[in-house]
Amino acid sequence: MNKMNTETLYQHGTLAMLVPGLLAGTLSVADLLKHGDTGIGTLSGLNGELMIIGGVVYQMAADGQIRVVGPKEMVPFANVHYAKQEPTTKLTNVDYAQFQQAALDQIGTENIFAAVTVTGKFTRMHTRAVGEQVSPYPTLAATAEAQQEFNATAIDGQVVGYFSPELYAGVVSPGFHLHFLSSDHVMGGHILDFELESGEIAIQPFQNFDLHLPIDNNDFRREHFNSRQVIADIRKAEH
Amino acid sequence: MNKMNTETLYQHGTLAMLVPGLLAGTLSVADLLKHGDTGIGTLSGLNGELMIIGGVVYQMAADGQIRVVGPKEMVPFANVHYAKQEPTTKLTNVDYAQFQQAALDQIGTENIFAAVTVTGKFTRMHTRAVGEQVSPYPTLAATAEAQQEFNATAIDGQVVGYFSPELYAGVVSPGFHLHFLSSDHVMGGHILDFELESGEIAIQPFQNFDLHLPIDNNDFRREHFNSRQVIADIRKAEH
Repeated sequence: MNKMNTETLYQHGTLAMLVPGLLAGTLSVADLLKHGDTGIGTLSGLNGELMIIGGVVYQMAADGQIRVVGPKEMVPFANVHYAKQEPTTKLTNVDYAQFQQAALDQIGTENIFAAVTVTGKFTRMHTRAVGEQVSPYPTLAATAEAQQEFNATAIDGQVVGYFSPELYAGVVSPGFHLHFLSSDHVMGGHILDFELESGEIAIQPFQNFDLHLPIDNNDFRREHFNSRQVIADIRKAEH
Repeated sequence: MNKMNTETLYQHGTLAMLVPGLLAGTLSVADLLKHGDTGIGTLSGLNGELMIIGGVVYQMAADGQIRVVGPKEMVPFANVHYAKQEPTTKLTNVDYAQFQQAALDQIGTENIFAAVTVTGKFTRMHTRAVGEQVSPYPTLAATAEAQQEFNATAIDGQVVGYFSPELYAGVVSPGFHLHFLSSDHVMGGHILDFELESGEIAIQPFQNFDLHLPIDNNDFRREHFNSRQVIADIRKAEH
């Protein structure tokens, strides 16, 4: 298998693990970057929102600071892929719902995984970043209290994230899961809402979804997941 | 990535695809065998139960016939992995429920994917094989009418299959999904029940679950899956 495979979405961990508070990092950033150069994720303790572009990992923290993450830092959950130069489509004056519909139209089906990237100018950008949790970790629902929201207007930047089919809810956040980083690297986070003034959107479909689980982590091994509750909590926390 | 990776479970298709009747094969047996030498699956049209051992694919058909499948035949759904020589544990005089508990104890967690193989003598073996469906395909629930059940006593043979966590219901059949093939290759199928007189069980845990989807298949692209209904139907059909 080609390591530079552009048809594979790699994921470490499941979103379900975060729900009961399995927030400790279980893969190093160096190991994560062996599977892709572009993606999103979070650090140990749910410390901020990660955006990976061109093999560089940026952390957007709850205090609003943005920094480059080192290879030894650990992630409990992240997605990466190798970016392929896909044709782009111009979108102008769309709100977040219209954007999602346009992206889904381009993917052409609700049943596959795809990367979604946008480079453009946003009339309005609304994000959040979760603050670092310490052990013993709280549940995902409880971390909402530690999140900070950010708002910007007339901001240039890049969106990176994924569309995932409904069937994989719990393993992933179903639908769109997108992060933002401004061009000047001073504003970003997990996208809650935006209005796009003008931008180029690119879709990269994947035929492979490669899931990697921390099978030697004792907390993960011992956890009794309630799948229905997990999915309900993810919908609440991620949207 | 090493093609002979023994820590990866490969899956083509999702079980969810079978529920509304997406039963056409979308991967050749030759391509499937590029990802493992051991596994289970079904052929185009849900034609029988497949068992893959040592790179040989056996079809156990609804008429009771067992034959070797050729490289050009197509599968809509299958799992394979590269078998690793794992230590075995002896089990004697266990029914199917006791067997499942013993296997789960050996896996040591309900949260990871693992291959389960048994070589032994079965006091009783109860299997089924689904009969070939033709296009336009019926739903998975309707194929139950076309399945035949088989019973044997005092039979030697091999069990191959997987344990999958509950979280992946719909993508896979959660819990144990096991097929049987007798040593003399005259009886087998999807296991419904058994009693093991004496056998050696081996567990192979996987840290990677690699899912491959038929992203260019138009029927798959167009389908609107109802995740809740899919999971309910799978529980009914597979257990």
